[in-house]
Amino acid sequence: MSRRNAPKSVIKRLPVYLRILDNLIRRDVEIISSRVLSEETGFTAEQIRKDLAYFGAFGTRGTGYNTTYLREKLLRIIGLDKETKLVVVGVGHLGKALTRYNITKNPYVKVVGIFDANPKEHGSEIEGHKVMSMEEMPRVIKEHDVKVAMITVPAEPAQDVVDQLVENGITAILNFAPTKLHVPEEVHVHNADLTIELQSLIYYTLEDEKKNYAE
Amino acid sequence: MSRRNAPKSVIKRLPVYLRILDNLIRRDVEIISSRVLSEETGFTAEQIRKDLAYFGAFGTRGTGYNTTYLREKLLRIIGLDKETKLVVVGVGHLGKALTRYNITKNPYVKVVGIFDANPKEHGSEIEGHKVMSMEEMPRVIKEHDVKVAMITVPAEPAQDVVDQLVENGITAILNFAPTKLHVPEEVHVHNADLTIELQSLIYYTLEDEKKNYAE
Repeated sequence: MSRRNAPKSVIKRLPVYLRILDNLIRRDVEIISSRVLSEETGFTAEQIRKDLAYFGAFGTRGTGYNTTYLREKLLRIIGLDKETKLVVVGVGHLGKALTRYNITKNPYVKVVGIFDANPKEHGSEIEGHKVMSMEEMPRVIKEHDVKVAMITVPAEPAQDVVDQLVENGITAILNFAPTKLHVPEEVHVHNADLTIELQSLIYYTLEDEKKNYAE
Repeated sequence: MSRRNAPKSVIKRLPVYLRILDNLIRRDVEIISSRVLSEETGFTAEQIRKDLAYFGAFGTRGTGYNTTYLREKLLRIIGLDKETKLVVVGVGHLGKALTRYNITKNPYVKVVGIFDANPKEHGSEIEGHKVMSMEEMPRVIKEHDVKVAMITVPAEPAQDVVDQLVENGITAILNFAPTKLHVPEEVHVHNADLTIELQSLIYYTLEDEKKNYAE
């Protein structure tokens, strides 16, 4: 496995393959060709073969991939074959929703700490987890050896929160705060900005209007 | 403006540029070079120049871009210079949070209808908007000539909801349901899957561990 050679774009597609495989296995499909995998994912068959080749040879020429085998391999490659511990910072509406979403939908994720700067939130419960003060964060991260954090605070305090997280050993951050975060090179940040998703979608509605005018 | 020639990846970067420009203007920065824009965004200066060149010549060689001018142009290119109407389907925790987020954070977006299949939700209010039954959806979409929808329903009913939306004239969908949607070619879907974001992030924590082992 040449894990380090796989580009970011490939890594982003692995969970998509995994989701398709989950669905196929649920429908008792045992073998899938890259052509069918292509139809299901929207990526070209060539792209899929290239992506998977970064991690080894999983298919049989002319037959395809064994769904259960490929799923297990992908779980291992991504790191979902064992539990990942997660802390959440910020319990506004978005933070609450996303924390519930992760706790209920992702069996491989274990939320070990939820933090907020607002004292009014301290002690309130989200899916059985008590919200803690920011002061408790370093202890919890250390105790559970947490590497992953989800940030759902407003833009203003986000960088300060990130600095604290990085200082305490967090190396992977899923950021929902609408701001660019500055982190050391070895820390990975995924910016999940919902405004940006919506904005680039709006571009396409305008394009459609233009098309209509042209007709 | 050769709008149709710009690839999807370019369109996804436009809102990022916009956000940086907003910040710069707030800090009274009038001119910005592609080098500084590169530092702020993380994209290369060459990439930025190429991206913007799809839509015209906005900078002055050796000087840079006028922030206010470029911001106005980008707003127009994306379609944010006028209000976009939006319907939301699904008011679970995620739906409620995202609806509030959009209503309060995005001045260019106007939510004109919020729908849910659960009768218990009908009549409840989110930021002053009453939740309606699915039966009212076609009328609302038609009345306001809505083109954009946000889906925050579970995976199971998602395709059925999408079919109804498309049938009633929706052409752009921001999908938070954890499933792949099948739509006609002219309909644009952005899949904002939070599980997938988190999964590909977990990959990098594993990579870090491997690095530690190697040391």
